[in-house]
Amino acid sequence: MNGAQSLVKSLVASGIDTCFANPGTSEMHFVGALDSAPELRAVLCLFEGVATGAADGYARMSGKPAATLLHLGAGLANGASNLHNARRAASPVVNVVGDHATYHQQYDAPLASDVAGIARPFSHWVHSSSSSKTVGGDAARAVQAARSAPGQIATMILPADTAWGEADIVAPALPVSPPAPVCDEAVALAQDMLTNGGKSAILMRGHAVLSAQGLEIAGRIRRKTGARVFCDTFAPRLERGAGVVAPERLPYFAEMLTDFLSELDSIVLVGAQPPVGFFAYPGKPSWCLPEDCRIHYLAAPHEDGAGALAALADALGADEPDERPKLTLPDAPSGKFNAFTIGQALARVLPEDAVLSDDGATSSGPVLAALEKAPRHIHMALTGGSIGQGLPVAIGAAVAAPERKVVCITGDGAGLYMPQALWTMAREQLDIVTIVFANREYKILSVEMMRVGVEEPGPKANAMFDIGTPPVDWVSLAKGFNVKATRAETIEEFSAQIEEAMATTGPHLIEAVLA
Amino acid sequence: MNGAQSLVKSLVASGIDTCFANPGTSEMHFVGALDSAPELRAVLCLFEGVATGAADGYARMSGKPAATLLHLGAGLANGASNLHNARRAASPVVNVVGDHATYHQQYDAPLASDVAGIARPFSHWVHSSSSSKTVGGDAARAVQAARSAPGQIATMILPADTAWGEADIVAPALPVSPPAPVCDEAVALAQDMLTNGGKSAILMRGHAVLSAQGLEIAGRIRRKTGARVFCDTFAPRLERGAGVVAPERLPYFAEMLTDFLSELDSIVLVGAQPPVGFFAYPGKPSWCLPEDCRIHYLAAPHEDGAGALAALADALGADEPDERPKLTLPDAPSGKFNAFTIGQALARVLPEDAVLSDDGATSSGPVLAALEKAPRHIHMALTGGSIGQGLPVAIGAAVAAPERKVVCITGDGAGLYMPQALWTMAREQLDIVTIVFANREYKILSVEMMRVGVEEPGPKANAMFDIGTPPVDWVSLAKGFNVKATRAETIEEFSAQIEEAMATTGPHLIEAVLA
Repeated sequence: MNGAQSLVKSLVASGIDTCFANPGTSEMHFVGALDSAPELRAVLCLFEGVATGAADGYARMSGKPAATLLHLGAGLANGASNLHNARRAASPVVNVVGDHATYHQQYDAPLASDVAGIARPFSHWVHSSSSSKTVGGDAARAVQAARSAPGQIATMILPADTAWGEADIVAPALPVSPPAPVCDEAVALAQDMLTNGGKSAILMRGHAVLSAQGLEIAGRIRRKTGARVFCDTFAPRLERGAGVVAPERLPYFAEMLTDFLSELDSIVLVGAQPPVGFFAYPGKPSWCLPEDCRIHYLAAPHEDGAGALAALADALGADEPDERPKLTLPDAPSGKFNAFTIGQALARVLPEDAVLSDDGATSSGPVLAALEKAPRHIHMALTGGSIGQGLPVAIGAAVAAPERKVVCITGDGAGLYMPQALWTMAREQLDIVTIVFANREYKILSVEMMRVGVEEPGPKANAMFDIGTPPVDWVSLAKGFNVKATRAETIEEFSAQIEEAMATTGPHLIEAVLA
Repeated sequence: MNGAQSLVKSLVASGIDTCFANPGTSEMHFVGALDSAPELRAVLCLFEGVATGAADGYARMSGKPAATLLHLGAGLANGASNLHNARRAASPVVNVVGDHATYHQQYDAPLASDVAGIARPFSHWVHSSSSSKTVGGDAARAVQAARSAPGQIATMILPADTAWGEADIVAPALPVSPPAPVCDEAVALAQDMLTNGGKSAILMRGHAVLSAQGLEIAGRIRRKTGARVFCDTFAPRLERGAGVVAPERLPYFAEMLTDFLSELDSIVLVGAQPPVGFFAYPGKPSWCLPEDCRIHYLAAPHEDGAGALAALADALGADEPDERPKLTLPDAPSGKFNAFTIGQALARVLPEDAVLSDDGATSSGPVLAALEKAPRHIHMALTGGSIGQGLPVAIGAAVAAPERKVVCITGDGAGLYMPQALWTMAREQLDIVTIVFANREYKILSVEMMRVGVEEPGPKANAMFDIGTPPVDWVSLAKGFNVKATRAETIEEFSAQIEEAMATTGPHLIEAVLA
């Protein structure tokens, strides 16, 4: 057994069953070891950001980490922006990054770089293996770190000689602590805040509390106390639609957020941070809660928010269920062709328990509004603000849940960061329908330009938002990657296309031309 | 004047005339300021790696830095792998990376990250501006740092409030020292090494020494002393072809390199490092020079290698020119369709002073061999080993030298890292002909797999090299980005297509199907 085999088998022993890979020479022994671990599925990606984004989507769907396989510091760097998003999603991810052999590093060969230094800003845990004898144990530690609540990025650096040297162990899985329990005093304080007569709210983040079950409990508390129930603007995973108690989603823009929160006397945070502006704007506040609003951290992200919520409901005697949206399919939209009517057409054909990977930028809000009473589905938002994760996250979700239909909604600007993701969808025949909102501009930026106080931008400035000169032909692009694709220029065309896409399996892309 | 205007005007005052941009909200004031600086050309890229790779190509062509405009840490990360390549090319680059307003950073909003920490492994100089009053001066310092010999990566972080706050200066350019002169003793030692009767060689790296003029001088030394003249395997810029004295290019694989160098008694380094293996392989040496080979650093990369070479030629009385390859166009190739015949077809139609951006992996060597006696051209290699730079570097070279034809040769695997580059070629109507060697595998990896000692890789391992399942349709892909494209499956088809591409201007892609 060599180090790479010890590593691969140890990853499997720790529960890793999927590796999103873009290997190079220094990872050849890892690749060679794949066939010794039939339990490990290797999914090839043409770009590292696809691999890391897919690992994020896999984790959001399955609740457990996938591995990535990346080529030295440069490969890791290519995957880093989606690790940023995964970090903000609290997704567990295990990165295996090849490096030069330990004795080769002194020579500063062309691909040499400070791999650990590159990993650090994006990782909770970084370790470079020093021997083939220890890589198995290092792998177990990496998985343990990734699975530590609420979910962490663990980056394991694998010098080539630690992969090809002799090894003798398959390391057993290390214990992973469950989320830390919340003490009674914290629950009692929350109970007091929700019942003292002031205006209060609960802001929730995390898979468990934003599941149908978690929201059901939050709904009971809302019904009992009148407290509002919020979810984060960009929650990594939110169950929603018919039959699922609906939280209010925090608005994106800082001044709308401030307005939205303006009447609160107190806020109880469950796995969430106090709401702040996504960006700063001249003369506008970053901090969006009222100055005298009391804040109570009922559960930190690594703590058992769902347990705390249940204990709070018990303490309150909140046993009456809150209203749940009833399945209400809109009439077939006609006439206007925009993100809302697209959402309506989607709502009419969305199967139950579909997954929505959302990188839709300015189109996202209207689609979500149109899907409020659609069949129950899981929404995955752009957690870290680094656009381009929608397609990769859809891949990961589809690999983790092949029985579900995955819908990716993406802006055209966002989708062009990592269009290579389409190839992996085709290769693995993943059941993903991608809707590209082709407004042919960085639309959010032309909005933000005014909001930051730049008046009358000139032609050079405006050109920086214009991705329609020339327009990208998404149908050709998708065809280039072997994904079936169609173009819709009216809502009627779109409706027919989305209906067909939903009725079949495998990857499909619809370019919705909104320009 | 606000900080952004002060910055943009100060960049212009320091000689920056081009900015490869992929902006976001935090860079809106910079974008807004573009129209106040008519001297600054802004080139929009759909992905940050395209912007940084283009800045590298621009620097290799023009000898001076371009700016990039990137969106916070995530955007910088997306551009980092090509900064790695640029760093290995000693290309001057000035990155302007937006960040949250200084007072907003405490809130850890979703896009917040350790921007300086991300920049550091890829930058020689990192600075985060603290005030709108100082960004002009910071810009001048960044350009100065970038232009310090031999060329550096300078990353300037621009918190949003330093862009929108009031400013009052346009900072003048700061002095840039010329490359440091080499002392007489170093020249005398080199002279001794080349004339003491042993077998010696000169290994050169850097634009000046690998220009026609630099090579001319090296040729005189070769003629006088019998010393061999080498250039680095992956030189950032090398003039070659008819009329240009040809150095011997170091082989890529370590054991070939060791063999190639085995008879040397001494080596004189001009801007180069001692040759080592690109990767380590089990049981093979990393260090490729003979153990007792004397090494003399005549000029470090930041020193005046061309001056040292001239002084050495003077000291040697080396005034007889060496042989220069005569223009010899091959007969029209027929029959076999491979990288060599493609190179022959290219040689027949290549205009003088073309630029070759080479990300050709296993196809690169045969093309270069076929171009040895082609019209004089400039070759730009993959300096840092992070594949995917070919298309972006071609963009930068074409922007810097619109009068030249740029030819990008790329493997299909390499080209799929940043295919969005094709869009910028179309948008700017750059005169670039891209040749994609579509062997539909990571061919270098199947070679390396054996070389690292993995015998009989299994089906899962082999699948990791197979990018032909499904095959990418490059013609559709290019059409999607509005680049004219054709497919060649025979050398006759290719020859006709390359002839037409050379006879017209504007972007053109040829998919050479070699699978």
